[in-house]
Amino acid sequence: MSVSGLFNSVVAGYAIATAWETGALDELSARGRLDIPSFCSRNDLHQPSIRGMFAALASASVAEVSGDSVVAGPLFSEVLEHKAFFHWLTIGCGSLFSDMPRVVRNDNRSGEFYRRDAAAIAYACREINAQCFDPAFFRALSALDFTPAAVADLGCGSGGRLVQLASRFPDVQGVGVDIAGDALRAAEKFVHNEGLGDRFSFVEGDARSLVDDPQFASVELLTCFMMGHDFWPRADCVESLRRLRQAFPNVHRFLLGDTARTQNIPDVDKPVFTLAFETAHDLMGVTIPTLDDWAGVFAEAGWRVVDMYTVDTPADSFIYALEPMS
Amino acid sequence: MSVSGLFNSVVAGYAIATAWETGALDELSARGRLDIPSFCSRNDLHQPSIRGMFAALASASVAEVSGDSVVAGPLFSEVLEHKAFFHWLTIGCGSLFSDMPRVVRNDNRSGEFYRRDAAAIAYACREINAQCFDPAFFRALSALDFTPAAVADLGCGSGGRLVQLASRFPDVQGVGVDIAGDALRAAEKFVHNEGLGDRFSFVEGDARSLVDDPQFASVELLTCFMMGHDFWPRADCVESLRRLRQAFPNVHRFLLGDTARTQNIPDVDKPVFTLAFETAHDLMGVTIPTLDDWAGVFAEAGWRVVDMYTVDTPADSFIYALEPMS
Repeated sequence: MSVSGLFNSVVAGYAIATAWETGALDELSARGRLDIPSFCSRNDLHQPSIRGMFAALASASVAEVSGDSVVAGPLFSEVLEHKAFFHWLTIGCGSLFSDMPRVVRNDNRSGEFYRRDAAAIAYACREINAQCFDPAFFRALSALDFTPAAVADLGCGSGGRLVQLASRFPDVQGVGVDIAGDALRAAEKFVHNEGLGDRFSFVEGDARSLVDDPQFASVELLTCFMMGHDFWPRADCVESLRRLRQAFPNVHRFLLGDTARTQNIPDVDKPVFTLAFETAHDLMGVTIPTLDDWAGVFAEAGWRVVDMYTVDTPADSFIYALEPMS
Repeated sequence: MSVSGLFNSVVAGYAIATAWETGALDELSARGRLDIPSFCSRNDLHQPSIRGMFAALASASVAEVSGDSVVAGPLFSEVLEHKAFFHWLTIGCGSLFSDMPRVVRNDNRSGEFYRRDAAAIAYACREINAQCFDPAFFRALSALDFTPAAVADLGCGSGGRLVQLASRFPDVQGVGVDIAGDALRAAEKFVHNEGLGDRFSFVEGDARSLVDDPQFASVELLTCFMMGHDFWPRADCVESLRRLRQAFPNVHRFLLGDTARTQNIPDVDKPVFTLAFETAHDLMGVTIPTLDDWAGVFAEAGWRVVDMYTVDTPADSFIYALEPMS
């Protein structure tokens, strides 16, 4: 790669996220071609900015532009598949990375020393979840030897997984737990709009130190996706996982899905997401455990591994199916 | 390029800016090798974050990491040369680009619809100026057929050019003009620290619509760098350039240096800076004139072109040496 290619790739990163949000990627994917003035007019977009966006995509061979006309470029299909990771990096974590020169200094690492765009991260993670974790999640649900009467989702965000569970188990009741009040209000609205408002309740709380709640008593299936690394470092993780057994006294199965820190992948061979995910958490000072770290924590915390489902992208992602030790 | 290469390049972009600010690029350049724990300890840096930074540099072949040891990679020299452009993009304009999905929507383009980091932009532009424009600037100064008694710098920022001019013309007096009060206070401090406090004054004002000021009366040399595009669109530029002749009634020479919008460079061949510079101004809704646009504006505004110095990087950059038509 040349330095100009490296430089233009950065601009292209922002442009991929923007092309996804504005619908340009979908339109190119569905129709194979896009007319810039028409696209801008139909979507009330600023044409010079959108031309800049397509120039950036063209610089990285994601699109090809000729006058007003845009077609897919050689990298289009693969970028379409990975668009959410670019969005996570450039929009969701854009503030964190733009603050990198400040955040790496120990003097600046106290208080709320970084910002991220929680709404943008949720937007990208919905897609990452659907694309990467859902296939394994559905396999794990199919393998259950019981039909849960009640479920709980830890880190439920805007409620997508609860709605999936309601669709899979038509009579299920449930509770969503999240540390972010904003997300819970969005989730309440979402399940209400789906006609499920009477079957789900929400608890604002920290999954790492959950207190007992009558709403948790009947929960038989517990899910927790893309936040398990927040339980760490190890001693805290053991404690948090033990606490979950107490807070959910009737749980039969705990499906825990997350992305681990990779080991031994040379930097030049790092696949999409890995480098950004690991560096972002380094900057935030958050431990990301490896697959080996995870494998070694469950027994001590009182959970038995029933099964483990691997997820290829992001690298070293997994869903553990756990049951409480008697 | 692969999609993972494209993705990792984005992270590398932030890492290059950070490696510059923390001194890692300088240390690698000077010593050829760097020890991560020692580097972090000497500079009070957060080691996991700095390891993430080097991993990102390594992913893009800018550095090679082996355990604690870092050496330059194949792209190191060229990245070192272009570091300020990466900083301008990822840190200075990071907020603007992270807001790209919002900024491209017409509904969101009113009021102060974008943010940039003015201090970071000034940091990068000092380097870009020194590296790219200074050689041509010094040639333009050498070509002067008079020794200016007084100078003025429009868009003086933190005062670097005024200090250069004082060093070149030991008896010169001068005035710095900038729209940003913060920059002027930094400039006052800078010229004071250089022992030049009694020779320079500062005016907070908009170079696009400058009002007469007694401090401008004796100015014989006028300079204006990296902000000339703010004079545009064309009718406004003609008016602003005319206004400068009135505001500086004794000016003999006006050195106007800026970067024009390139023409006919295929997107995949865009050199460093061009794509980001043009896209950023598209997003901000700021016209960037082409070299042809510039060439066609001076006569109408009452300025004669004495000479024109070309600057290769950024592409289509220039310094015009102008004199007022009598």
